[in-house]
Formats: sequence, structure tokens, C-alpha cells
Amino acid sequence: MTSSTIQPVLIAGQWRSSDHDKTFQATDPNKNELLDQTFPISNWSDCDAALDAAAAAAIELRKLPSAKIAEFLNAYADRIDAAKESLVEAAFAETGLAKSPRLADVELPRTSNQLRAAAAACQSGDWAMATIDTKAGIRSCFESLGPVCVFGPNNFPFAFGSVSGGDFAAAIAAGNPVIGKANSSHPETTRLFAEIALEALKQTGLPLATVQLIYRSSHADGERLVADPRLSATGYTGSRSAGLKLKAAAETAGKQIYLELSSVNPVAITPAALKERGDALAEEFVGSVLMGSGQFCTNPGMILLIDCDESEDFIDAVKERFEAAGSGTLLSPAVANSLSASVKKLCGIGATLVTGGGDPAADRCAYANTLLRADGADFLKDPEGYQTEAFGNATLLVVADDLDELTQVIRQLEGNLTGSIYTESGDADEDAYQAIEFELKPKVGRLLNDKMPTGVAVSPAMNHGGPYPATGHPGFTAVGVPASLVRFAKLTSFDNIRGNRLPELLRDKNPTGKTWRLVDGDWTQADLA
Amino acid sequence: MTSSTIQPVLIAGQWRSSDHDKTFQATDPNKNELLDQTFPISNWSDCDAALDAAAAAAIELRKLPSAKIAEFLNAYADRIDAAKESLVEAAFAETGLAKSPRLADVELPRTSNQLRAAAAACQSGDWAMATIDTKAGIRSCFESLGPVCVFGPNNFPFAFGSVSGGDFAAAIAAGNPVIGKANSSHPETTRLFAEIALEALKQTGLPLATVQLIYRSSHADGERLVADPRLSATGYTGSRSAGLKLKAAAETAGKQIYLELSSVNPVAITPAALKERGDALAEEFVGSVLMGSGQFCTNPGMILLIDCDESEDFIDAVKERFEAAGSGTLLSPAVANSLSASVKKLCGIGATLVTGGGDPAADRCAYANTLLRADGADFLKDPEGYQTEAFGNATLLVVADDLDELTQVIRQLEGNLTGSIYTESGDADEDAYQAIEFELKPKVGRLLNDKMPTGVAVSPAMNHGGPYPATGHPGFTAVGVPASLVRFAKLTSFDNIRGNRLPELLRDKNPTGKTWRLVDGDWTQADLA
Repeated sequence: MTSSTIQPVLIAGQWRSSDHDKTFQATDPNKNELLDQTFPISNWSDCDAALDAAAAAAIELRKLPSAKIAEFLNAYADRIDAAKESLVEAAFAETGLAKSPRLADVELPRTSNQLRAAAAACQSGDWAMATIDTKAGIRSCFESLGPVCVFGPNNFPFAFGSVSGGDFAAAIAAGNPVIGKANSSHPETTRLFAEIALEALKQTGLPLATVQLIYRSSHADGERLVADPRLSATGYTGSRSAGLKLKAAAETAGKQIYLELSSVNPVAITPAALKERGDALAEEFVGSVLMGSGQFCTNPGMILLIDCDESEDFIDAVKERFEAAGSGTLLSPAVANSLSASVKKLCGIGATLVTGGGDPAADRCAYANTLLRADGADFLKDPEGYQTEAFGNATLLVVADDLDELTQVIRQLEGNLTGSIYTESGDADEDAYQAIEFELKPKVGRLLNDKMPTGVAVSPAMNHGGPYPATGHPGFTAVGVPASLVRFAKLTSFDNIRGNRLPELLRDKNPTGKTWRLVDGDWTQADLA
Repeated sequence: MTSSTIQPVLIAGQWRSSDHDKTFQATDPNKNELLDQTFPISNWSDCDAALDAAAAAAIELRKLPSAKIAEFLNAYADRIDAAKESLVEAAFAETGLAKSPRLADVELPRTSNQLRAAAAACQSGDWAMATIDTKAGIRSCFESLGPVCVFGPNNFPFAFGSVSGGDFAAAIAAGNPVIGKANSSHPETTRLFAEIALEALKQTGLPLATVQLIYRSSHADGERLVADPRLSATGYTGSRSAGLKLKAAAETAGKQIYLELSSVNPVAITPAALKERGDALAEEFVGSVLMGSGQFCTNPGMILLIDCDESEDFIDAVKERFEAAGSGTLLSPAVANSLSASVKKLCGIGATLVTGGGDPAADRCAYANTLLRADGADFLKDPEGYQTEAFGNATLLVVADDLDELTQVIRQLEGNLTGSIYTESGDADEDAYQAIEFELKPKVGRLLNDKMPTGVAVSPAMNHGGPYPATGHPGFTAVGVPASLVRFAKLTSFDNIRGNRLPELLRDKNPTGKTWRLVDGDWTQADLA
């Protein structure tokens, strides 16, 4: 196979011919046709070369002041904004996501702003949690960890992209080089980002191997990569089955891996809330679940209701809207097929179709807006089966006999990214709220009131994480600066270290004049007396 | 086997007969004789009952204000102080550690003060990292995780004990019940702590299953325990081989496990430092390495030197002191045998004996103070072999040809808890320092200057942790309040939650008037405006 028509990989600052035996092409989901460009499925030697270069870059990065890293992140953000048109075109062709507002006006600004927020965190040093104990003569902070590999998901080609998204920004801001593993459904979009990143690296004088890119490898090489001694940690967002294999490989080697896997994001709605504003809630829910064809990590995939007339009215109202709305385009044939399989599986164990179902469309990647229904008693007979994630424009309604059965259903839930509770706007059903919250909160990373979970604000208080199997560790968030940075950091304590040998962040003089440091138990921005 | 003479286990607030087929006895290391008391090796049904009770207790604990938990920790600390005499007697009989100052005057006060520090952290709420984003309407904090199992090590029967030590204190202060798995070398000491804890639980009205104790189980049941759905996390301090089996079992089930495994704690000493104060350093080193017969997690097990006359003088001075000092008592026959095996292994791959070696003593648990030596070149031929931990009163000297070879040796080190660098007190060898530090710092959790690593202060800036395989995660510390608490916590984000439904810690009014909270990017103790 000649490499002349095959896209090169980015290793050690060079776009070089990949070592590969196989190739792949992405699909235009609006046409269900393969796109022209051909990308390599890298052999191990590509990974090996990237690891060598990343290890060398990690050493160089440790010598640089964090202001330099921030400069790169800002320059990269600016260049992304400037390249908006080509990025949007590429992502539209590969994902079918709407050019506007979604790609151009929502996801792209979010992406560049996320990089800027990471730059600000990097420069301020607040994320490093500088801690000083003057009596004991001990000081500590978080520091860079070493090369990080990022596996980006299919559903956010920009904001969670392997060389542009949240994990990338966090790993770089914490001072680590990143090896990006493009999502196979949008390789060209990822390639464009890597091109832009390389220009920004050159502009700001960072080691060129700070950002590297391969498109795809064998599963075995992926497992070898996350376990390699030269790699320090991995960020992965994607399917549970692939993620758990990488988790096992990384953890056996003693490596950190931060995973974002599946989540059905349960939404409980009380009868009193439906009585008060059932139609508005149907509208709100349908808007949330069909946005982006339901392809959000925090898409509400399960609605928990209590058997009553208002619940039936709500179901009717949702059904009507599901049928009236056209079915959106899905990201890829794989997503359409997986959605169809999940719906069939749910029907197979006893869920009934309220609307939708069937097979994926033939002429494009799409599936009918689908509403499934089960009783609480059915759910309790097979909780695992009914928690099958149907990623896309489908939701399972679970209708419990009463509040007690509803809480039993929630007690059987796996870990989720989010859980929402809608109640009447007064305190008419406060007891119901408390009963639901008591069961739901321990199961979720983010609890919501009267709000759909779909949006994930980039806020310091955001937890885009949650108990296993939503993620691999309930104490970390993938979104939200500065908290997301500590995933890719190592805590170092400096015991009796001479003042001139301390990292700037831990010296008596506050290096920025405004870095927050925990000094003898109090947070302060002051210099040490 | 009748259970009348066999010590009961503490499950669900009751001292009950264990379900067991086998039993064990601890050894008095000063006599190398089995002690009288017989303890059960629990069958699974004991673990199962403890897990059920812990799950119920976890639910009850979530309903309690943190002040109640703090009250228990303080009451327990006071009762420990009051029971000093019996605790010291029991620990002396089981471990051979000196009654005074070690057990009575150092480890016991450290233990009760650690519990008080955990109580203070619990009550202040600072550990929970309350974060408030007023614009986005999102608030987050760390919350309790659920039942925690603690496997205590052999070398700190009080301060790292499974129902009295750092992991225990952190897990309880974060709001979780603990199932203690006693270390088999000091079951009676652990039983006494559990008795005291139960009294303190009764006194303060906490769920009685907040503290439970089993003494030992099969390895298979241990692995089943850490992976059980009712358990949330595990703290383990002990041998690498057992720890890695538990790690695999826990992580396969998606459970957190915090491990403290082996560490050789390298200490580099430059020629200039030796020239300046070689004899004093020999004295300091010998005091550190022979303290407690070298049975500290942070015992300096490897000295890194550069070939020169001063290094030879240092080695002679250490040899002389090793030979002059009597060999202390080791914790158990297992420790003595393991130390002897490690020394033999190191000699087998090429290390030479400067002094010591041989077989363990017969009449008590002891081994000759042992100094081994290898060249840098030898080390570099088998870095893994030369990093064999010789837990106890033995140290390996690695003598490199020059600074360059020394840094190559350090580059081959595994992750360690600590790393120390001694240089001349001026800046005569600052270049050497920088070269050593650059390689050493990424390998260790705590970096020291001109100080032996043996002591582990309970300080907010302490990192008693380090890169794998010293621990399982380089971002967490097992010692140091409040940081050690977050290991046993879950991050929860509250998105659009009505004010009266927020945890007290996240309401507009600061619950204690002085809890530190990160509000819109700034740390403050103020109420929200």
C-alpha cells in the first residue's frame, strides 16, 4: 500500500508516513457514504515512536515556566477560533452535527474557551493546591505527571477531541505532553486540530512533541499503549466495553486511567410536578433528549415516573412530540446500529415500544425517535438489562406503582454521571423529594433539580464524573477547571527543602502575588511573613 | 473446634463467635514463641455479615451531622489515651517494639492526635473542598463514599492500625464505616482498639457497625471482600505481593483501593556533603536506619554515593556503628525470614556484604544489622533486582563512578515514598543537587534535603504516598489531614438545587462561620452575599 494517498501521523513534531498495514475511512452520516480521505491504522512502531518523543518532551516541559504552557494554550485557542470555518466543515462532514448553532456557535467557542480556562489555571497555579506548613517545614503541591494519552469520543469532535478537548486541555495545563488517539469517526477533524496545535507549538516555543497524533491502532496496541512504562496516564471517553479493556491493561501496569463510560442519566418527575406543569416538562424533556439526536453523555436516557393520570398525560405528550419531530442524524453507522440493538434488547426483556423502534435508516445514519416503557416491577426483575444504554434519540420510561417502588428502582441503579429530580415548585412533595434524593445522590456525580442534565457547564463546581461504571473514580471530574487538572498530576511534598530549591509556587514569596495557597490551615494569597 | 477459647469478632456492634475453620496465634518476637490467645480465620459468612452491617451503617451515617462523627473520633482518642497501659503491653508482646519511648510516648500520642486532627477536619468541613459557582448555579463538595475496608500493616500497631490508624481516621472522618482487617501479627492489640472504639460509639450514639473487626480471612475471601458491591473502597498497607492481588480484585470490580506497598527510600549523599560532615551524616543515617530495627515504610534502604575517599570513609563509619549497635527485635518471624531472603537475593545478584548477613536469630526475631554494597554499573545491569526491598535493619549502598552514573541509577528507580538529597551546606555542589533532583523528584512522593526520611509528620503538606509501585495512585496521601480524607470520598455537584435542599456546607450561609470555600474562584470563609 503506498502511503502517498494516506494521511500522515504527527510524531515528534513531524507529519510522517505512518507504519501501518491497514487503513480506514470515516463515513458521512448524512449520506451513509465513506468519505474520501484514507487514514492509517498505525502499527506499534508509531506508538513506540510517539512514546519516545513524549517522554523526551515531558522532560523538557518540566523545565519550562507554566506561563509558557499557558501561552501555548492561549495561542492554540486563538488559532482554533481563526480556523473555525474549516473545522466546522470537516466536523460536519464526519459527524453530521449541525454546523450552526451546534458546531460553529456552541461547541467551537466552548472548546477554545476551555483551552483559555486551562491556560488561566496553569498560569495562576491555583490548581496545584500549594500547601505550606511552616512549623513542620513541609510544603506540597501538585506537579506534572508525564506523558498522557487521550482517547476522544465520537460525540464531541471539538470539546472532547483527543487533541483539543477537556482531557487534552487539562493534561497540557498540568504540564504533560499528550498523545492523541483520534476517534475513528472524525479523523480529519482531529488532523486539522493537530495541524493547528503544531503551529501554536512552533509559535510559542514549546517542545514539538507536546502534541502528537495517531488515528487508530489495533485494540491490542491500544492496551499496550496505556500500560507502557513511558506513559503516565490516560483519559478515555467512549464505549464501556473498550474502556474496561483499557482500564484493566492500564491498572495492571499501575497506570492511572480516567474513564468516562456509559450513563443513562435518570430523571425522576413527581406527580405533583406533572400536575403543576406537565406539558412544559414534556416540552423540556423532548428538547433535551432530542438535542444532538440524544448523543450526549448526559442525555436523559431514563425517566422515572409514578403511576398516575399525570404520568400518562406526560407520556402521551412526549409521544406526540417524538412523532412530530423528525429524527436527527446520528454520528455514524455504528451509533445507529448500536441504538437499534439496544432498543431491540430492551424490547426483548419486556419493555414496550411507545413509539419508534425498528431498524436504522438506509440512506443516512438515523433512527426513529424512540420511547420505551416498563413497569417498576419489570425493572426490578432485571435491573441490569433495563439499564442497557441506548445511546441516541431513545429513552426508557420506568413507571413505578408508588414512591416506595420508585426508590427501590433507584437503589438498583448503577453509577451515573447525573441524576435529576423534578418536583412541584413549592414544597408540596418535599417528602417525595427527600426519599428520591436519598437514594439517587450516592449514585450520581451531579444532582439536578428541575433541570435536564444535557448541558455540562465549564464551571469550577462542575462534576462531570460519577461512581463506577459511569467513570472509574468517583473523586475526579473531566470537566471543570481547575479540578480536572489534578487527574494528570502527582502530589509532591517538599520536606526541609532549602528555600532557593523550592518550586516557585512554594517559596515564601507568592509567585504571582495572587496564587491561592493553604498556609498553616488558612487559604491566602499573601507572601509568607 | 470449640469457640469458647477463641476470640470473637466484632460485627454489627456485637462481639460474636466467628464462623471459622482455622485459627492462628501471634508470636512474641522477643521469645520467638506463640502467644496464648487464639484468633479465628474468618470464613466468608463473617465478611458477609460485616458488609451487610456496614452498608446499613453507611446509610445511617449519611443522616448524621459531621459534628457527631467528630464527637466519636474525639471520644475514641480520649479513651485510647486512657487505655495507654494495656495497649502498650499488648503491642509490646505482639510486636517487640519498645514500650518507651516508641509505643507509649511516640506512637500512641500520635495515634490519638491523628484521630483528633481527623475530628477537627470533619467538623470544620474544610476537607470537603466546597466549591460554589454563583453565576452557573452549581455547587460541589466531597461527600462520604460508603463502607471502607482497612488492612493495617505489621509495623505500626497503633498509628496505622486497621481500626485506629490513619486510613481508619480518614475513612471515618469522611463519613464512612470501617471494616478493619487486623494485621495477623498483632490481633490482640487490634482487638483492644475495637473494644475501645465500640465503647466510644455507644457513648456518642453512632451506628455501632461504624467500626467492625475481623482478624484474618483466606486470601480468596480478602479479594472477594475488596470487590464486594457493598464495599466502596479499601485502604491497604503491607507487602507488595498481597497488595497487588487485592488491587487487581478491587479494580476489576470498579472499586477504589489505596495501597501503600514497598519503598526503598533512596538517599543520595554528595562527596561535598561527606567532606563537610561525613561523620555526622554516618551517625544520622545509622540512627535513622536502625530506629525500630529499620521497620519503617520510609526507612532509608538505599544510599546513593559517588566513588571517592569520603564515600569510603562514610561506609567505614557506618560499618563500625552497625557492628557496635546490637540488632533490634524484628516484628515477627516472617519479617526476619523475609529480610534474610532479601539479603541473600541481593548477594546472589552481586551485592557484597560490608557487614551483617547470615541467618535470622533462633531465640528471638532478629537479624544482624546488615550493610550491602554494589557499584553503579552492577546496579544498572539489574535495576529491578537491586531494588529488592530488604525490610528491616539492612541497607544497600550503591556507589556510582561519577555524578552521571548516579543520575542513571536514579533514572532506573521505581516509584518510592521518599527520596533524600544531602549536599554541602553552602552552594558548592548546587549543580550536583540539581542533576540529582531532576531525576529523583519524579520518582518520589516526598523529597527531602539534608534530612532522613524516617519520620512522617502529620501535616497538611505531608505526602505519604508516591508513584507506583510505592502506592497505587500518585495523587493521594495516606498521612496528612485533610488531604487523606478525599481518598474515601465522592465528588458531588449540585446543579440548580434549591437552597433548602443543599448540604449545609454549600448553603449561602457558611455553616461554621469559618469553613473555607472556593466561591467564584476565591477561597473565603464568608457567607454568600
